[in-house]
Amino acid sequence: MARFKKITIIGVGLIGGSIGLAVRKRRLAREVVGVFRRESTLKKALKCNAVDKATIFIEGGVKGADLIIVASPVHSIPKIVKTAAKYAKEGAIITDAGSTKAWIVGSVEKSLRKGRIHFVGSHPMAGSEHAGVEYARADLFEKAPCIVTKTAATDRTSLNRVIKFWSSLGAIVKVMSPAAHDRSVSLISHLPHIVAFGLAGSVPLKELQYAAEGFKDTTRVASSDPELWADIFLTNRREILKAGRFFEEYYKGILKAISKGDHSKTVNFLKRAKSKRDALTYGKESV
Amino acid sequence: MARFKKITIIGVGLIGGSIGLAVRKRRLAREVVGVFRRESTLKKALKCNAVDKATIFIEGGVKGADLIIVASPVHSIPKIVKTAAKYAKEGAIITDAGSTKAWIVGSVEKSLRKGRIHFVGSHPMAGSEHAGVEYARADLFEKAPCIVTKTAATDRTSLNRVIKFWSSLGAIVKVMSPAAHDRSVSLISHLPHIVAFGLAGSVPLKELQYAAEGFKDTTRVASSDPELWADIFLTNRREILKAGRFFEEYYKGILKAISKGDHSKTVNFLKRAKSKRDALTYGKESV
Repeated sequence: MARFKKITIIGVGLIGGSIGLAVRKRRLAREVVGVFRRESTLKKALKCNAVDKATIFIEGGVKGADLIIVASPVHSIPKIVKTAAKYAKEGAIITDAGSTKAWIVGSVEKSLRKGRIHFVGSHPMAGSEHAGVEYARADLFEKAPCIVTKTAATDRTSLNRVIKFWSSLGAIVKVMSPAAHDRSVSLISHLPHIVAFGLAGSVPLKELQYAAEGFKDTTRVASSDPELWADIFLTNRREILKAGRFFEEYYKGILKAISKGDHSKTVNFLKRAKSKRDALTYGKESV
Repeated sequence: MARFKKITIIGVGLIGGSIGLAVRKRRLAREVVGVFRRESTLKKALKCNAVDKATIFIEGGVKGADLIIVASPVHSIPKIVKTAAKYAKEGAIITDAGSTKAWIVGSVEKSLRKGRIHFVGSHPMAGSEHAGVEYARADLFEKAPCIVTKTAATDRTSLNRVIKFWSSLGAIVKVMSPAAHDRSVSLISHLPHIVAFGLAGSVPLKELQYAAEGFKDTTRVASSDPELWADIFLTNRREILKAGRFFEEYYKGILKAISKGDHSKTVNFLKRAKSKRDALTYGKESV
């Protein structure tokens, strides 16, 4: 169990709010402080007990905290980490919850003076198509993968504390480099989102009335926040374009087999895809 | 309420079994007979009370039925309809539950002698990634779209009885031509399935461990039966290839905006997609 005196969460939306709820439920900190950009969100977060205390000032919010978690939109994270580091006490650990890592970790490591404050990149892979603290849940991270990044500059003690922290929230933690993280999420998260946006965006409006469960599931994440996801996509461009080529090759292979009327080749493509998808549900490759 | 003396279901899997359960629950027929290809499925169907009586012989199964529903895989439907028509009583109505319509309805209309037996094409748009009568549910068709096809050869009285039949099961029935049906489902069902198969198939196995809810939802239908879907895809080739071009244009538009680092263009693509997807959940276009 990772225990802290004071945990400060900067950006208390779905993810930040869920961290607050989970920390408070599991009593992992004596005090949980939320730092907000808007008064309206601050009030909502207090109403759903996501944090003990709330402020709109980073300076006061991070004062004396031993763990600071930046859960704001990706593009804002490096700047916020820099500001938080300025006012944090010596030896404080700062982590984040951003969905891309190479850009964030790289920017932060360039800007942070080494030694006084320790930064460790994190990406809890939980969430939903809903944004906002009103959707926060204390169990959001239970059994969810959480990637924690390690670089040559990462302080080993802080790394272990961050790993323990996410494990305490129920997450299954994996440690990898920021580059390996960005490659994984481009394949498993970013590209699937782009494909879902592509499907939802290209369907003529009048056809929507015939949409059944298959379409709804396949496009569910296209209801996600456009600003938030544009941010994520734009900070992981190279890997996303690579992941796109993987997908396109398989997708076009299926279409080609169909257009040729090749039954066994079509079945073969679908079987290979099904065996991977079934592995996710049933825990092993089933074909 | 549409009432029948005897309803015969040929092919009692998820769809056929759910029809049986729903008809029996709502007492829409005095007798529900199931026709099976395999003894093992026959026993399973009787065990879950999907039908009153079961047989492996079409000839006896359809004898005296006033409604015959063919719920077998797409490629088998025209032949089965032809055989069923041969043994059905004069004036019997035959419908199906196939996921493509132009090929099925076209084939059937060519083979059926006009007047004695009436065929009306149907496509109840319900189901799941699971196949088999053990997943059948009496409420499967409630609020699900069901498309019933109308052509120059369609008998109007039979068309109305088939419409009433699906409505009685709780479905929201729409009447359209087989060609219009095939276009709609290519966009709203077939292509989303191909995209899901493409995503699941192209992800390297070792990355699957990081899959969160987004990936799971987006690829859920890739667990569907490969034979069944190859069948569907191959009987709707032209429309699927057209739907593919719609999707690819939007998808590539997003990727291009991302690769150029164009934030506002990326957001704009995502917003338009989100507004359509939100319309599905909240009942209107929300942007």
